[in-house]
Amino acid sequence: MPTITQVDVLDIRFPTSSDQDGSDAMNKDADYSVAYVIIQTDEPGLCGYGFTFTIGRGNDICVLAAQQRAAPLVGHSVEEITNDLGSTYRELKSDSQLRWLGPDKGVEHLALAAVMNAVWDLAARRARLPLWELLSTMSPKQLVDTMDLTYLSDVLTRDRAIEILEAGLEFRPDRLRELRANGYPCYTTSAGWLGYSDAKLRRLCQQAVDEGYTHIKIKVGADHENDLRRLQIVRDVIGPDLTLMLDANQVWDVPEAIRKVQDLARFSPRWIEEPTSPDDILGHAAIRRAVAPVEVATGEHGMNRVLFKQMFQAEAIDICQLDSARLASINEILPVYLMAKIFNVPVCPHAGGVGLCELVQHLSVFDYLAISGSLEGRVTEYVDHLHEHFVDPCIVQKGAYLLPTAPGYSAKMFDSSLEAYSFPDGTYWKQAVKTLYKVG
Amino acid sequence: MPTITQVDVLDIRFPTSSDQDGSDAMNKDADYSVAYVIIQTDEPGLCGYGFTFTIGRGNDICVLAAQQRAAPLVGHSVEEITNDLGSTYRELKSDSQLRWLGPDKGVEHLALAAVMNAVWDLAARRARLPLWELLSTMSPKQLVDTMDLTYLSDVLTRDRAIEILEAGLEFRPDRLRELRANGYPCYTTSAGWLGYSDAKLRRLCQQAVDEGYTHIKIKVGADHENDLRRLQIVRDVIGPDLTLMLDANQVWDVPEAIRKVQDLARFSPRWIEEPTSPDDILGHAAIRRAVAPVEVATGEHGMNRVLFKQMFQAEAIDICQLDSARLASINEILPVYLMAKIFNVPVCPHAGGVGLCELVQHLSVFDYLAISGSLEGRVTEYVDHLHEHFVDPCIVQKGAYLLPTAPGYSAKMFDSSLEAYSFPDGTYWKQAVKTLYKVG
Repeated sequence: MPTITQVDVLDIRFPTSSDQDGSDAMNKDADYSVAYVIIQTDEPGLCGYGFTFTIGRGNDICVLAAQQRAAPLVGHSVEEITNDLGSTYRELKSDSQLRWLGPDKGVEHLALAAVMNAVWDLAARRARLPLWELLSTMSPKQLVDTMDLTYLSDVLTRDRAIEILEAGLEFRPDRLRELRANGYPCYTTSAGWLGYSDAKLRRLCQQAVDEGYTHIKIKVGADHENDLRRLQIVRDVIGPDLTLMLDANQVWDVPEAIRKVQDLARFSPRWIEEPTSPDDILGHAAIRRAVAPVEVATGEHGMNRVLFKQMFQAEAIDICQLDSARLASINEILPVYLMAKIFNVPVCPHAGGVGLCELVQHLSVFDYLAISGSLEGRVTEYVDHLHEHFVDPCIVQKGAYLLPTAPGYSAKMFDSSLEAYSFPDGTYWKQAVKTLYKVG
Repeated sequence: MPTITQVDVLDIRFPTSSDQDGSDAMNKDADYSVAYVIIQTDEPGLCGYGFTFTIGRGNDICVLAAQQRAAPLVGHSVEEITNDLGSTYRELKSDSQLRWLGPDKGVEHLALAAVMNAVWDLAARRARLPLWELLSTMSPKQLVDTMDLTYLSDVLTRDRAIEILEAGLEFRPDRLRELRANGYPCYTTSAGWLGYSDAKLRRLCQQAVDEGYTHIKIKVGADHENDLRRLQIVRDVIGPDLTLMLDANQVWDVPEAIRKVQDLARFSPRWIEEPTSPDDILGHAAIRRAVAPVEVATGEHGMNRVLFKQMFQAEAIDICQLDSARLASINEILPVYLMAKIFNVPVCPHAGGVGLCELVQHLSVFDYLAISGSLEGRVTEYVDHLHEHFVDPCIVQKGAYLLPTAPGYSAKMFDSSLEAYSFPDGTYWKQAVKTLYKVG
């Protein structure tokens, strides 16, 4: 019976700020990074891989927090840890002293996400199934047993959760056939980073159209005149029929968001993403009322299930963009999907970064199969970089994610990537110009 | 011109779990701790002291985060850092890579609180004034310049903030005379920790009455029958006229909170504190509507100004219990006081822990002098332990905090305390029984 022998947590950073990949109005110099968890076992070839995503400095703080969170796993059998994923989650989360540092938010929650992502990856690898398929083999009751339903009962009880999952069972085979045939629809953010020149923006938009994308997202919010010029370029290239989304990355307060979006509405965007503070539920509700029919989307900084519960209750958002490395893994993500179902809000997960696309494809697939049962209004984010570091990268064709087939949560990175980009001692960082990264 | 030469951050932990001091329904084994910041200067005797409060494990994570946050201070003149406390705050907060780990919540925000608390302490020591008096010497415009008003403009604009502060100017001398004469009213939590025996509860309640307290707070929420028995004991001792408050420390969901509080209402409590998740604004609003006239209080886990803005907008709370080491120091605390004024919600700060009483006395005094101008419904928390570690401890007499007179934010601890309780290498911890503390 294999046993967990140790848990390693690595500080992996990619120097994306050097090319302005990922640049937006709030995050001007992101170095895409992961606090990368490896759960080692004594069975040859059996490990669990997971991570949380950060954008550079502070990744070491998440590493330290994840090391502490993961420590109780060591010495337990793989079976014990992966057969009862609800108990494992609750045990790791139960430390009341660590709870004070959140609760359920910030560094500690990112760390719990990293560790539980690795536990779910381990469970799927042990079952020799891709994660979405592992979830499909679990009964509604088994799934609900894994869920963190604390503080949700005014919206989602255990019975209601089971009922929703049971209602979807009979449709799953048909839906699976459809996904195998067509994949799960996605949109691209790769064209519209704020730091790109107009020429590069034009070229990348054309490229996205040529690749078959029907949805394109553009960063806005730094300078309004600049936004107007760039959006005109985008519409010139993509025409009036393709779907345009805007992302302001939290730079506005509520009154400014309303003014700016009402003006940007001339370009007929489908949604405005992160118009203000990710914590401002009532602010999002006010913006939504003011800018309709432009939709309001948020969630990549949505800190926990209690925040999303209120976003739904307050009718604050049209689109839920939960993050697979900020919520505490499947245990917290599934309840958010179920609440979204109750309130009829499409979930279009945040992706990009490092490896987030690899994770969220499993979520979107399982949502369609078992919960939402609908593709209407749903597109999952896709960003075309850093996939080369993953052993089982996601595959996108004609604007759709193909169904993942390899066992696990697609989270494993190549050893060569880990060796090169470990911070600060990996081969890349040892050679990198020091000024590229403000050390200390 | 004195310069900041280095910033030290120490991991200080007190073994309070051994006596069940601080025990409640959520936090059963708190070891009261601080991530303690010392800003060193090259002027003999001039340092700044500050901290954030935690309850044990994870304090080292806050120490690491505070070290990184504080690093940019080194090499600057004391004058530059303390003359423009708004710019200092914004500079320390501006790191967009670190922002990803929050924003404005969890470990990173606790760390910013610790560092800025030390900066404000340094400013007050340099001015040779207690902090509340330093604030009193600043003009409304100067004060507002220090404030973090981001994401607040739908409730609190810069102009409105100045207007409120200007309106109070003429009354300050009278109010100051009153505080000098009577102090600022407080209540005690020392009697009612959940881990105490009935006999100890009875004895401590009687002692509180004898000491002149008119308000007593009791922990509830672990076991309902136990709560009923303990509250009967408390009412037997304090009689029907003294004010009783209850604190559930977040153990209930919304429907359960409503049921339990409606039942506990038979003991005529003034308020129920932390009835559910600290993030659940709409949940608090629902509870408040259901349990009136019992008031709803929360705030010690209120993560930032945006949360409090919504608590006020949603009419979710009767009492705001902001925390001086969780909000990012005066820069973020003053805007919350101003919003509370707009919505006519009394602020009764959370205290206790280690050193929180020392900090909040300054806040309550300045609130009365310059913002609320009222003592109606206001009592600041007081807990009678760990004050012996502070060089300028708060002084409470007859249920009131006396006006602090020593320069600074009262945050400085004795060197001997730091040496004994540094974790894990201080003289106390080296000798402590290892099982008392789950190391690793």
